[in-house]
Amino acid sequence: MSQQELESLDVEAIREEFPILQREFDGQQVVYLDNAATTQTPDSVVDAMSDYYREYNANVHRGIHHLSQEASLAYEQAHDRVADFIGADGREEVVFTKNTTESENLVAYSWGLNELGPGDTIVLTEMEHHASLVTWQQIGERTGADVEYIRVDETGRLDMDHARELIDDDTAIVSAVHVSNTLGTVNPVGELTDLAHECDAFSFIDGAQAVPNRPVDVTEIGADFYAFSGHKMAGPTGIGVLYGKQELLEAMEPYLYGGGMIRKVTFEESTWGDLPWKFEPGTPPIAEAVGLHTAIDWLEEIGMDRIQAHEEEMARYAYDQLEAEDDVEIYGPEPGPDRGGLVSFNLADVHAHDLTSILNDYAVAVRAGDHCTQPLHDKLGVPASTRASFYVYNTREEVEQLVAALEDARELFA
Amino acid sequence: MSQQELESLDVEAIREEFPILQREFDGQQVVYLDNAATTQTPDSVVDAMSDYYREYNANVHRGIHHLSQEASLAYEQAHDRVADFIGADGREEVVFTKNTTESENLVAYSWGLNELGPGDTIVLTEMEHHASLVTWQQIGERTGADVEYIRVDETGRLDMDHARELIDDDTAIVSAVHVSNTLGTVNPVGELTDLAHECDAFSFIDGAQAVPNRPVDVTEIGADFYAFSGHKMAGPTGIGVLYGKQELLEAMEPYLYGGGMIRKVTFEESTWGDLPWKFEPGTPPIAEAVGLHTAIDWLEEIGMDRIQAHEEEMARYAYDQLEAEDDVEIYGPEPGPDRGGLVSFNLADVHAHDLTSILNDYAVAVRAGDHCTQPLHDKLGVPASTRASFYVYNTREEVEQLVAALEDARELFA
Repeated sequence: MSQQELESLDVEAIREEFPILQREFDGQQVVYLDNAATTQTPDSVVDAMSDYYREYNANVHRGIHHLSQEASLAYEQAHDRVADFIGADGREEVVFTKNTTESENLVAYSWGLNELGPGDTIVLTEMEHHASLVTWQQIGERTGADVEYIRVDETGRLDMDHARELIDDDTAIVSAVHVSNTLGTVNPVGELTDLAHECDAFSFIDGAQAVPNRPVDVTEIGADFYAFSGHKMAGPTGIGVLYGKQELLEAMEPYLYGGGMIRKVTFEESTWGDLPWKFEPGTPPIAEAVGLHTAIDWLEEIGMDRIQAHEEEMARYAYDQLEAEDDVEIYGPEPGPDRGGLVSFNLADVHAHDLTSILNDYAVAVRAGDHCTQPLHDKLGVPASTRASFYVYNTREEVEQLVAALEDARELFA
Repeated sequence: MSQQELESLDVEAIREEFPILQREFDGQQVVYLDNAATTQTPDSVVDAMSDYYREYNANVHRGIHHLSQEASLAYEQAHDRVADFIGADGREEVVFTKNTTESENLVAYSWGLNELGPGDTIVLTEMEHHASLVTWQQIGERTGADVEYIRVDETGRLDMDHARELIDDDTAIVSAVHVSNTLGTVNPVGELTDLAHECDAFSFIDGAQAVPNRPVDVTEIGADFYAFSGHKMAGPTGIGVLYGKQELLEAMEPYLYGGGMIRKVTFEESTWGDLPWKFEPGTPPIAEAVGLHTAIDWLEEIGMDRIQAHEEEMARYAYDQLEAEDDVEIYGPEPGPDRGGLVSFNLADVHAHDLTSILNDYAVAVRAGDHCTQPLHDKLGVPASTRASFYVYNTREEVEQLVAALEDARELFA
């Protein structure tokens, strides 16, 4: 995308849809750079959910009365909208969960617990989020399968030679983040999926940091499973997505049991209903599905390629200024096609929590911690890092405020 | 509560807080009697969630910046509010899940899968919801434990002699609905819990149809676990609650793994964090917790005893009129202290779906189906029933509209 097209993104107009960005603390307007944790929610999404509650709130599962018909239709259409957005074949391949973490656990239980055994290997990467890393560790322990980690090299990229070494005939599944929430690395998930398939293994891609920020086509990637969350993509809390290839989801047992997912129940036994409902027992996140649908409409109206370009431009601007500071260490690859819209760093030997606390005095909102990648931080040799993550509403001025606040902080710690 | 006190409930003023109750279909205002499936949401709850998104939306887990501090505080306080509402000892005993079904599955996995084995019995009732019945069936199958059902007698009550027979030294857990979503029966859950405890078994009470409708004190009941959902108590979709005694929850392994629930993670192993967060991995339902908190405030301002009295008055009024019709069969106990605010019935040999469809032509919204209690319906000898369920905003006129519509329907089917 050319610079001119980028400039056509009217960030100021976009910001007007987010009243929260006008919040002030001690007279300073918030600079919200914690988007990898949660993005803000535009008025249209909030309004769509309020409209749901005020106009057609009802339980779904094909109730006969008007309100339930309207709610059921909206809930089903939200599945269609998500399927279309990520290039899935249809609603049968789109399961609504409560968050990405549950999507990961669903596959670990429904597929992993039933299919894995001693001799099998689960191949992860050293940059996995705890949602994947802890889950597969536990399933490995229960089933006797081994967990192996593809090395992260000194540039913050996956060592693909090591990947080719680890992924072999023993491999049952390869689970990898699409974009690292810590390093910003964009992983070659299509290639990893191909390697898995060559060994008759499945691939699970954690797209929590990808779907909100770039065009994603699960069919193009070829992934067997793909997961993400509503609240990181201008949508609501309380909803996540699991994409799965239809034939796999059909073959899998559900892991949660209850109403709305069964075909026939007797006192002795039960049989399961159709996809995707088989994996959605109980009253699902209906208002949240409406919100997610609206969020996707909102994102696509702007255009995912423009969102990606804007975020990466912001991240590059931050990276370049932070890189110029002698005492700032940045983690992950240099800006380029394999780096997304976030920058994690440390300032000299200042603890990330202390730095973030000072930045907060300037109303600059960033996240400090291990970002749910403790083992990766151990490898980096730091207990924590400070992460600035960008979204479509961030501006160059906000990046400058981050850097200026950092410079003031340095004085304080000097 | 005396009739005079009941009259002091200003239902018309309450109805003004629910714009959805003004919806019209074909010129007829909706008569919403599907409250056991989902209750409507007052403006204050919808507004509280909108305010969250517009003013302090952020991820929780003790982020350092102002917005995350505000969101974390609100999220934690919602746990405190729920604890206070149901008489729990504190937030450590209150786990937020996605719905009652997940609460049931959480205990089945975290406790059942690890503790049950051949020779153990799981004692349910014949009126269990699929959320409990299917879940424990599956856990029984995986562990070798047997599932037994306390009989429902011809009045729609539990046969407590049978309960005393079934609950013995082999019993590991007794899982029962507090109020049946089909029969309306209010079960003696304190007595069932005592029977379980006498045999060193645990009790799990499904309170999805109780907490929204009557004062509930889990400590008074003595239950080890107790579950319910936000969307049936004037709150949002996407959130459920599991109450558990602190010492039990502390001893239990989590069943979902991910961020926010761990203490320490390495590439080899993980250890778990404090209650209740140990059971809440990933980004939790934050806006939904805010909504649930506000719903509880709203309910308590009216008063749970007044809500109970009003609903039961509505149900009795419906029961009495339907009972007077020769060709209507009502299921469950006669109105009294052990019947809650709902009435399930069938009209002659008309299928419940057909009847409900005709009622919908009069904008009367009731639910037809097996209400997720297929085995109970098999026992009743019908494939389905029509259920009218009442909430604090329903009126005697609405009950009359239901009965009038039913009479018109009878003509049609004659």
